[in-house]
Amino acid sequence: MKTRQVIVKDLPKGTLTQDHFALTETDLPAPKEGELLIRTILMSIDAANRAWMQGATYRAAILAGDPMHTYALAEVIDSRAPKFTKGDIIAVETVWADYAVVPAKGAQKMPPVETLSHLMSVFGIAGKTAFHGLLSVGRPLPGETVVVSAAAGSVGAYVGQIAKAVGCRVVGIAGGAEKCKWVVDDLGFDACVDYRDPAWHKALKAACPEGIDIYFDNVGGNILETVLFRMNERGRVVCCGAVSQYDATAPSGPRNLPGLVVVKRLRMEGFIVMDYAHEDTTALRALQNWVKSGAIKVPEDIVEGLENAPAALIGLLAGENRGKRMVRVGPDAV
Amino acid sequence: MKTRQVIVKDLPKGTLTQDHFALTETDLPAPKEGELLIRTILMSIDAANRAWMQGATYRAAILAGDPMHTYALAEVIDSRAPKFTKGDIIAVETVWADYAVVPAKGAQKMPPVETLSHLMSVFGIAGKTAFHGLLSVGRPLPGETVVVSAAAGSVGAYVGQIAKAVGCRVVGIAGGAEKCKWVVDDLGFDACVDYRDPAWHKALKAACPEGIDIYFDNVGGNILETVLFRMNERGRVVCCGAVSQYDATAPSGPRNLPGLVVVKRLRMEGFIVMDYAHEDTTALRALQNWVKSGAIKVPEDIVEGLENAPAALIGLLAGENRGKRMVRVGPDAV
Repeated sequence: MKTRQVIVKDLPKGTLTQDHFALTETDLPAPKEGELLIRTILMSIDAANRAWMQGATYRAAILAGDPMHTYALAEVIDSRAPKFTKGDIIAVETVWADYAVVPAKGAQKMPPVETLSHLMSVFGIAGKTAFHGLLSVGRPLPGETVVVSAAAGSVGAYVGQIAKAVGCRVVGIAGGAEKCKWVVDDLGFDACVDYRDPAWHKALKAACPEGIDIYFDNVGGNILETVLFRMNERGRVVCCGAVSQYDATAPSGPRNLPGLVVVKRLRMEGFIVMDYAHEDTTALRALQNWVKSGAIKVPEDIVEGLENAPAALIGLLAGENRGKRMVRVGPDAV
Repeated sequence: MKTRQVIVKDLPKGTLTQDHFALTETDLPAPKEGELLIRTILMSIDAANRAWMQGATYRAAILAGDPMHTYALAEVIDSRAPKFTKGDIIAVETVWADYAVVPAKGAQKMPPVETLSHLMSVFGIAGKTAFHGLLSVGRPLPGETVVVSAAAGSVGAYVGQIAKAVGCRVVGIAGGAEKCKWVVDDLGFDACVDYRDPAWHKALKAACPEGIDIYFDNVGGNILETVLFRMNERGRVVCCGAVSQYDATAPSGPRNLPGLVVVKRLRMEGFIVMDYAHEDTTALRALQNWVKSGAIKVPEDIVEGLENAPAALIGLLAGENRGKRMVRVGPDAV
C-alpha cells in the first residue's frame, strides 16, 4: 500500500524552514513477523525533533532523505505480533506519515482514556518529563522558588503547575507579554517574565525576592546565564533541553559556567524521561488526581494535517505554541 | 607591636602581577577579649586567593588596600580566649603577615603531628577537598574512569591517588610534558595528558578508551569543554574550581553547556569542603591509613618567606607548583 510521508530533504545548518522538508509518497511493504502496520492518529511535535537533525543525541541522528521520526499515537491496522491486534491504540516511535510498518517491540498498548490527546500531553512524555524532572531531579521543598523557562510550552506548563501543587512559588519565563499573561491567568503561576523585554533580568529579580532554588531549564543559552546569577546556594538546575541552541549556527555557553556552579555549590543535572520509567506509575497516579481535582489544567495545541507538520515544528521552535503541540493526521483521526 | 603585611594594592582586572601587591608594615592592636595574637607559620597558597579578588564568592571579596587573606597554620603568642593558650598550634583564617590578631572563634587547635605541613596538604583542605569531592560528589565505582585537571596541583594530586586507591582508572590533565611525567611516575596515575599539546584531545581520547565517568574539574573553560565531549552517559562533573577563568578578562563558558548535560544526562555539581565537615573524621582516618601504607604520597611545594607570597600565588596560577603550595613565614618557622 501507499502512504504519504514527510522527509527531511536537507539537513538544516541554521534556522529550520519549510524548504528542509518534502511531502512524498512511498510504497509500504507488508508487515513481517514481529511487525505492525499502523495508522497515525496524533504525532508529538517536540524541540527534540530539531535536536535529532544536529547529530546523534540519546538516539541516532536523522539524516538527509530520512522521514522525520516522531513519537505518536496510532491504531493497529494489521498485526504480525502476538501482543497486538487490529484496532489497538498504541504509543510508538514512527515517522511523519499516514501509515507505517514498525517493529512491535517498543510499541506500547494504551489504556482507553476519555480524551486520547491527554496520552500525548499530561499523561504522556510532557507530563512525565515535568513530574520526574521537577520532583526526582530538582527535589523541591515547599516554600522554595522554582523558575521554569518555556513556561507556556508542553513541559513547562506542567512543571509550573506541579510545583504549585507541591507548595512552591513559581515563576515562568516565556516570550511575549500575551503569553506571560496566559501563564499567570490560565495556568496559575505566581509570575511570568517576558524574556523579549530588554529589562527582563530586573523583572526576574523582582519576581524572585528570595532568590531561585530550582531552575527547570528548557532553553540553555543567555536565559540560563541570567538565571544562574540569581540562584541561591545549593540551588538545582534541572537540565531538560537547550532549545535556544538547536537552531544556532555557533552555539554559545553561559559565560558564568562552571564558575557559579562552584561558587554557589549548584547541582546541574540532565535527565531524560526514560531514566525514571520505574516511577511512571507513581507519576501517572499523581497527575490523574491533579487533573481530576482541577489543580492541573491540560493545555493542548493541536495542528490538523500531516502536511502541516513542518510548519508546526518550525512554529514550535519560534515559540508560538501554548501547551503541548501535536499534529492530528488523517481526516478520520480520533 | 609591628608586623609586616602583604596588601592587595590594586585589584587585578586581568593577569595578576607583582604590581598588584605591596609589602607594608603596620601596627597591631593588643588582642581584645575573644581574640588571639598569632605568629604565622605556614600559609596556604590557593587559586581561590585569586577568585576572592574577583568579587564575593562563598566569602566576602578582597578589596583594594586589604591584606590578602589566607588559611594558615599559626602559633598562639597571646590568648584572650579560654580555649587557647600560648604555644598552641592552630589552623585559622588570617592574612599574609608575620603576626596578626584574629578572633578565636573560627580558630581550630591542631593535633601534634610529625610533619606540620601535612596539616596543610593531605590532612588539610587539599586532602579533604579531594576526598569529599571525589567520593561524596563524584561517587566513583571501581573500574570507572576518573579524569582530573590540574593533576599536579594540591587537590588534583590527591584526587588521582584516592581514585586509584578505590579502584578507578585515573587520567590526569596537566601543563607540560615534564609535569605529566611526574604525575604518572611519582603519583602513579595511569596516564596524564599535556593540555599544552595542540593534539591533547586525541591523547585524552586514547587515554580513556572506555570514556570518562567522572571529571574532577579544577579549571573550567576550554578544558572542561573538551572533556565533556568524552563523558559517558550518566557521568558526573565534580566542579571544584575554574582556575582558567580567574585571570580572564572576558570569561567564556564551554559552548557545549548545557547541551551535553541534557544529551548525556550528566550531573555537574559544585561543592566546598566545609559542606562535608560532618564527614571529616572519616576522611582523615582514610587519608592517614593511605599515607601510612604508602598508597598516597604527599607532594608539598614550600616557598620560603612572607615577601615571596605574591610570587608564589602568581606562579601557582601559571601552574608551576607540584602538589600543595605553601609559604613558610619567619626565620624561626617550624
